[in-house]
Amino acid sequence: MDEALKIASQAKNSGDVPVGAVIVMDNKIIAKAGNRVEIDHDPTAHAEMLVIKEAGKILKSTILNQCSLYVTLEPCSMCAQAIAFARIKHLYFGAYDPKGGGVLHGPRIFNQPTCHHKPEVYGGIMESRASDLLKDFFRNLRP
Amino acid sequence: MDEALKIASQAKNSGDVPVGAVIVMDNKIIAKAGNRVEIDHDPTAHAEMLVIKEAGKILKSTILNQCSLYVTLEPCSMCAQAIAFARIKHLYFGAYDPKGGGVLHGPRIFNQPTCHHKPEVYGGIMESRASDLLKDFFRNLRP
Repeated sequence: MDEALKIASQAKNSGDVPVGAVIVMDNKIIAKAGNRVEIDHDPTAHAEMLVIKEAGKILKSTILNQCSLYVTLEPCSMCAQAIAFARIKHLYFGAYDPKGGGVLHGPRIFNQPTCHHKPEVYGGIMESRASDLLKDFFRNLRP
Repeated sequence: MDEALKIASQAKNSGDVPVGAVIVMDNKIIAKAGNRVEIDHDPTAHAEMLVIKEAGKILKSTILNQCSLYVTLEPCSMCAQAIAFARIKHLYFGAYDPKGGGVLHGPRIFNQPTCHHKPEVYGGIMESRASDLLKDFFRNLRP
Protein backbone atom coordinates (compact mmCIF):
# COMPACT_ATOMS: atom_id res chain seq x y z
CA MET A 1 0.00 0.00 0.00
CA ASP A 2 2.98 2.25 0.65
CA GLU A 3 4.02 1.84 -3.02
CA ALA A 4 0.43 2.49 -4.19
CA LEU A 5 0.39 5.72 -2.15
CA LYS A 6 3.66 6.85 -3.77
CA ILE A 7 2.18 6.24 -7.22
CA ALA A 8 -1.03 8.06 -6.23
CA SER A 9 1.03 11.04 -5.21
CA GLN A 10 2.70 11.11 -8.64
CA ALA A 11 -0.65 10.86 -10.49
CA LYS A 12 -1.76 14.25 -9.18
CA ASN A 13 1.12 15.95 -11.01
CA SER A 14 -0.71 15.31 -14.30
CA GLY A 15 -3.96 16.75 -12.89
CA ASP A 16 -5.36 13.30 -12.23
CA VAL A 17 -7.17 12.41 -9.02
CA PRO A 18 -4.40 10.85 -6.89
CA VAL A 19 -5.17 7.13 -6.82
CA GLY A 20 -2.54 4.43 -7.15
CA ALA A 21 -2.70 0.65 -7.42
CA VAL A 22 -0.35 -2.31 -7.41
CA ILE A 23 -0.81 -6.02 -8.01
CA VAL A 24 1.18 -8.43 -5.89
CA MET A 25 1.86 -12.10 -6.63
CA ASP A 26 4.11 -14.33 -4.50
CA ASN A 27 5.02 -11.32 -2.37
CA LYS A 28 6.32 -9.40 -5.38
CA ILE A 29 4.81 -6.36 -7.10
CA ILE A 30 4.14 -7.42 -10.70
CA ALA A 31 2.21 -4.34 -11.91
CA LYS A 32 1.74 -0.78 -10.73
CA ALA A 33 -0.11 2.23 -12.09
CA GLY A 34 -1.61 5.56 -11.16
CA ASN A 35 -4.89 7.00 -12.35
CA ARG A 36 -4.40 8.31 -15.92
CA VAL A 37 -7.93 9.48 -16.86
CA GLU A 38 -6.99 13.09 -17.59
CA ILE A 39 -3.54 12.60 -19.06
CA ASP A 40 -4.79 9.85 -21.42
CA HIS A 41 -8.25 11.39 -22.14
CA ASP A 42 -9.57 7.98 -21.13
CA PRO A 43 -12.51 7.69 -18.71
CA THR A 44 -11.66 4.01 -18.18
CA ALA A 45 -8.02 4.59 -17.17
CA HIS A 46 -8.45 4.12 -13.43
CA ALA A 47 -5.39 2.78 -11.61
CA GLU A 48 -7.05 -0.60 -10.93
CA MET A 49 -7.94 -1.11 -14.61
CA LEU A 50 -4.40 -0.35 -15.70
CA VAL A 51 -2.78 -2.78 -13.25
CA ILE A 52 -5.23 -5.55 -14.18
CA LYS A 53 -4.41 -5.02 -17.87
CA GLU A 54 -0.68 -5.04 -17.15
CA ALA A 55 -0.80 -8.14 -14.94
CA GLY A 56 -2.92 -10.00 -17.51
CA LYS A 57 -0.37 -9.20 -20.20
CA ILE A 58 2.55 -10.32 -18.00
CA LEU A 59 0.89 -13.56 -16.91
CA LYS A 60 -0.70 -14.14 -20.34
CA SER A 61 -3.99 -14.87 -18.60
CA THR A 62 -7.27 -13.13 -17.82
CA ILE A 63 -7.42 -15.07 -14.54
CA LEU A 64 -5.41 -13.41 -11.78
CA ASN A 65 -6.57 -15.65 -8.95
CA GLN A 66 -3.13 -15.80 -7.33
CA CYS A 67 -2.92 -12.02 -7.14
CA SER A 68 -3.72 -9.36 -4.56
CA LEU A 69 -4.69 -5.87 -5.60
CA TYR A 70 -3.81 -2.87 -3.42
CA VAL A 71 -5.44 0.45 -4.26
CA THR A 72 -5.54 3.71 -2.31
CA LEU A 73 -9.29 4.31 -2.80
CA GLU A 74 -12.34 2.04 -2.68
CA PRO A 75 -12.86 0.83 -6.28
CA CYS A 76 -15.82 2.18 -8.28
CA SER A 77 -18.36 -0.13 -9.94
CA MET A 78 -16.34 -0.34 -13.16
CA CYS A 79 -13.17 -1.40 -11.36
CA ALA A 80 -15.00 -3.70 -8.94
CA GLN A 81 -16.53 -5.59 -11.88
CA ALA A 82 -13.11 -5.80 -13.56
CA ILE A 83 -11.66 -7.18 -10.28
CA ALA A 84 -14.43 -9.81 -10.27
CA PHE A 85 -13.76 -10.72 -13.94
CA ALA A 86 -10.03 -11.07 -13.17
CA ARG A 87 -10.80 -13.19 -10.09
CA ILE A 88 -8.42 -11.19 -7.92
CA LYS A 89 -7.89 -13.12 -4.66
CA HIS A 90 -7.50 -10.29 -2.14
CA LEU A 91 -8.50 -6.66 -2.45
CA TYR A 92 -6.93 -4.14 -0.07
CA PHE A 93 -8.06 -0.56 -0.34
CA GLY A 94 -7.25 2.68 1.50
CA ALA A 95 -9.93 5.36 1.75
CA TYR A 96 -13.65 4.55 1.72
CA ASP A 97 -15.67 6.24 -1.05
CA PRO A 98 -19.33 6.71 -0.11
CA LYS A 99 -20.01 8.80 -3.24
CA GLY A 100 -18.27 6.80 -5.94
CA GLY A 101 -17.39 3.42 -4.42
CA GLY A 102 -18.89 0.23 -5.79
CA VAL A 103 -17.64 -2.30 -3.23
CA LEU A 104 -19.07 -1.24 0.14
CA HIS A 105 -21.20 1.55 -1.33
CA GLY A 106 -23.48 2.12 -4.33
CA PRO A 107 -24.26 -1.13 -6.18
CA ARG A 108 -21.94 -3.28 -3.96
CA ILE A 109 -20.86 -5.19 -7.04
CA PHE A 110 -19.47 -8.28 -5.25
CA ASN A 111 -22.77 -8.78 -3.42
CA GLN A 112 -24.86 -8.85 -6.60
CA PRO A 113 -26.37 -12.28 -7.31
CA THR A 114 -25.03 -12.03 -10.88
CA CYS A 115 -21.42 -11.50 -9.70
CA HIS A 116 -19.43 -14.71 -10.07
CA HIS A 117 -16.39 -13.89 -7.97
CA LYS A 118 -15.93 -12.06 -4.70
CA PRO A 119 -12.40 -11.34 -3.52
CA GLU A 120 -11.54 -11.12 0.17
CA VAL A 121 -11.94 -7.40 0.83
CA TYR A 122 -9.99 -5.35 3.39
CA GLY A 123 -10.84 -1.63 3.49
CA GLY A 124 -9.31 1.24 5.42
CA ILE A 125 -5.64 0.21 4.94
CA MET A 126 -3.49 3.33 5.60
CA GLU A 127 -6.79 5.15 5.25
CA SER A 128 -5.72 8.52 6.63
CA ARG A 129 -2.74 8.85 4.26
CA ALA A 130 -4.89 7.91 1.24
CA SER A 131 -7.68 10.19 2.34
CA ASP A 132 -5.38 13.18 3.09
CA LEU A 133 -3.86 12.89 -0.38
CA LEU A 134 -7.34 13.12 -1.97
CA LYS A 135 -8.49 15.95 0.30
CA ASP A 136 -5.36 18.01 -0.47
CA PHE A 137 -5.88 17.45 -4.20
CA PHE A 138 -9.50 18.60 -4.17
CA ARG A 139 -8.71 21.53 -1.84
CA ASN A 140 -6.10 22.77 -4.31
CA LEU A 141 -8.53 22.39 -7.23
CA ARG A 142 -11.05 24.70 -5.53
CA PRO A 143 -8.98 27.32 -3.71
CA MET B 1 -25.71 -1.73 -35.35
CA ASP B 2 -25.09 -3.55 -38.60
CA GLU B 3 -21.41 -2.55 -38.41
CA ALA B 4 -21.23 -3.61 -34.73
CA LEU B 5 -22.64 -7.03 -35.71
CA LYS B 6 -19.99 -7.43 -38.42
CA ILE B 7 -17.26 -6.66 -35.89
CA ALA B 8 -18.82 -9.06 -33.39
CA SER B 9 -18.70 -11.79 -35.99
CA GLN B 10 -14.98 -11.18 -36.52
CA ALA B 11 -14.23 -11.25 -32.75
CA LYS B 12 -15.25 -14.90 -32.51
CA ASN B 13 -12.42 -15.88 -34.86
CA SER B 14 -9.95 -15.17 -32.06
CA GLY B 15 -11.96 -17.26 -29.60
CA ASP B 16 -13.55 -14.19 -28.07
CA VAL B 17 -17.25 -13.97 -27.24
CA PRO B 18 -18.71 -12.25 -30.33
CA VAL B 19 -19.59 -8.75 -29.17
CA GLY B 20 -18.97 -5.63 -31.24
CA ALA B 21 -19.36 -1.93 -30.57
CA VAL B 22 -19.18 1.36 -32.45
CA ILE B 23 -19.33 4.98 -31.38
CA VAL B 24 -21.15 7.41 -33.63
CA MET B 25 -20.86 11.20 -33.61
CA ASP B 26 -22.58 13.50 -36.12
CA ASN B 27 -23.85 10.43 -38.00
CA LYS B 28 -20.32 9.11 -38.51
CA ILE B 29 -18.64 6.11 -36.93
CA ILE B 30 -15.61 7.47 -35.08
CA ALA B 31 -14.53 4.28 -33.25
CA LYS B 32 -15.20 0.58 -33.57
CA ALA B 33 -13.97 -2.52 -31.76
CA GLY B 34 -14.73 -6.12 -31.02
CA ASN B 35 -14.32 -7.91 -27.73
CA ARG B 36 -10.59 -8.70 -27.24
CA VAL B 37 -10.54 -10.31 -23.77
CA GLU B 38 -8.99 -13.60 -24.85
CA ILE B 39 -6.70 -12.39 -27.61
CA ASP B 40 -5.26 -9.64 -25.37
CA HIS B 41 -5.34 -11.61 -22.08
CA ASP B 42 -7.21 -8.60 -20.74
CA PRO B 43 -10.38 -9.08 -18.66
CA THR B 44 -11.23 -5.39 -19.19
CA ALA B 45 -11.06 -5.50 -23.02
CA HIS B 46 -14.81 -5.54 -23.71
CA ALA B 47 -15.85 -3.94 -26.99
CA GLU B 48 -17.51 -0.98 -25.23
CA MET B 49 -14.37 -0.19 -23.20
CA LEU B 50 -12.21 -0.24 -26.31
CA VAL B 51 -14.44 2.12 -28.30
CA ILE B 52 -14.71 4.54 -25.38
CA LYS B 53 -10.91 4.58 -25.07
CA GLU B 54 -10.52 5.12 -28.81
CA ALA B 55 -13.14 7.88 -29.02
CA GLY B 56 -11.61 9.66 -26.01
CA LYS B 57 -8.21 9.60 -27.69
CA ILE B 58 -9.64 10.91 -30.98
CA LEU B 59 -11.67 13.69 -29.37
CA LYS B 60 -8.96 14.41 -26.76
CA SER B 61 -11.67 14.40 -24.10
CA THR B 62 -13.05 12.07 -21.44
CA ILE B 63 -16.50 13.57 -22.06
CA LEU B 64 -18.28 11.93 -25.00
CA ASN B 65 -21.66 13.61 -24.52
CA GLN B 66 -22.21 14.13 -28.24
CA CYS B 67 -21.74 10.43 -28.95
CA SER B 68 -23.98 7.39 -29.31
CA LEU B 69 -22.70 3.93 -28.47
CA TYR B 70 -24.03 0.87 -30.33
CA VAL B 71 -23.18 -2.55 -28.91
CA THR B 72 -24.51 -5.97 -29.81
CA LEU B 73 -25.03 -7.12 -26.19
CA GLU B 74 -26.37 -5.39 -23.09
CA PRO B 75 -23.33 -3.87 -21.34
CA CYS B 76 -22.07 -5.44 -18.09
CA SER B 77 -21.61 -3.38 -14.91
CA MET B 78 -18.01 -2.48 -15.81
CA CYS B 79 -18.99 -1.13 -19.23
CA ALA B 80 -22.16 0.54 -17.97
CA GLN B 81 -20.13 2.48 -15.40
CA ALA B 82 -17.59 3.44 -18.10
CA ILE B 83 -20.49 4.64 -20.30
CA ALA B 84 -21.71 6.78 -17.38
CA PHE B 85 -18.21 8.21 -16.78
CA ALA B 86 -17.92 9.05 -20.50
CA ARG B 87 -21.40 10.65 -20.46
CA ILE B 88 -22.44 8.83 -23.62
CA LYS B 89 -25.68 10.41 -24.88
CA HIS B 90 -27.50 7.40 -26.36
CA LEU B 91 -26.90 3.72 -25.75
CA TYR B 92 -28.30 1.23 -28.27
CA PHE B 93 -27.79 -2.45 -27.53
CA GLY B 94 -28.77 -5.69 -29.24
CA ALA B 95 -29.34 -8.79 -27.10
CA TYR B 96 -30.51 -8.59 -23.49
CA ASP B 97 -28.21 -10.24 -20.93
CA PRO B 98 -30.07 -11.40 -17.81
CA LYS B 99 -26.97 -13.20 -16.47
CA GLY B 100 -24.23 -10.62 -17.04
CA GLY B 101 -25.96 -7.36 -17.94
CA GLY B 102 -25.61 -4.31 -15.73
CA VAL B 103 -28.09 -1.95 -17.40
CA LEU B 104 -31.51 -3.61 -17.19
CA HIS B 105 -30.28 -6.52 -15.08
CA GLY B 106 -28.01 -7.07 -12.06
CA PRO B 107 -27.01 -3.81 -10.39
CA ARG B 108 -28.78 -1.59 -13.00
CA ILE B 109 -25.86 0.84 -12.84
CA PHE B 110 -27.66 3.86 -14.33
CA ASN B 111 -30.40 3.62 -11.73
CA GLN B 112 -28.02 3.73 -8.77
CA PRO B 113 -28.35 6.93 -6.71
CA THR B 114 -24.54 7.31 -6.92
CA CYS B 115 -24.53 7.23 -10.74
CA HIS B 116 -24.13 10.75 -12.14
CA HIS B 117 -25.11 10.18 -15.75
CA LYS B 118 -27.78 8.08 -17.41
CA PRO B 119 -27.76 7.80 -21.19
CA GLU B 120 -30.97 7.29 -23.15
CA VAL B 121 -31.12 3.50 -23.42
CA TYR B 122 -32.64 1.51 -26.30
CA GLY B 123 -32.39 -2.28 -25.96
CA GLY B 124 -33.27 -5.10 -28.35
CA ILE B 125 -31.96 -3.43 -31.53
CA MET B 126 -31.46 -6.21 -34.11
CA GLU B 127 -31.78 -8.49 -31.12
CA SER B 128 -32.22 -11.79 -32.94
CA ARG B 129 -29.07 -11.38 -35.07
CA ALA B 130 -27.00 -10.41 -32.02
CA SER B 131 -28.46 -13.22 -29.99
CA ASP B 132 -28.04 -15.88 -32.71
CA LEU B 133 -24.37 -14.94 -33.05
CA LEU B 134 -23.84 -15.53 -29.32
CA LYS B 135 -25.86 -18.76 -29.26
CA ASP B 136 -23.88 -20.18 -32.22
CA PHE B 137 -20.62 -19.28 -30.52
CA PHE B 138 -21.49 -21.01 -27.25
CA ARG B 139 -22.98 -24.01 -29.06
CA ASN B 140 -19.70 -24.50 -30.90
CA LEU B 141 -17.71 -24.19 -27.68
CA ARG B 142 -19.65 -27.07 -26.10
CA PRO B 143 -20.34 -29.49 -28.95
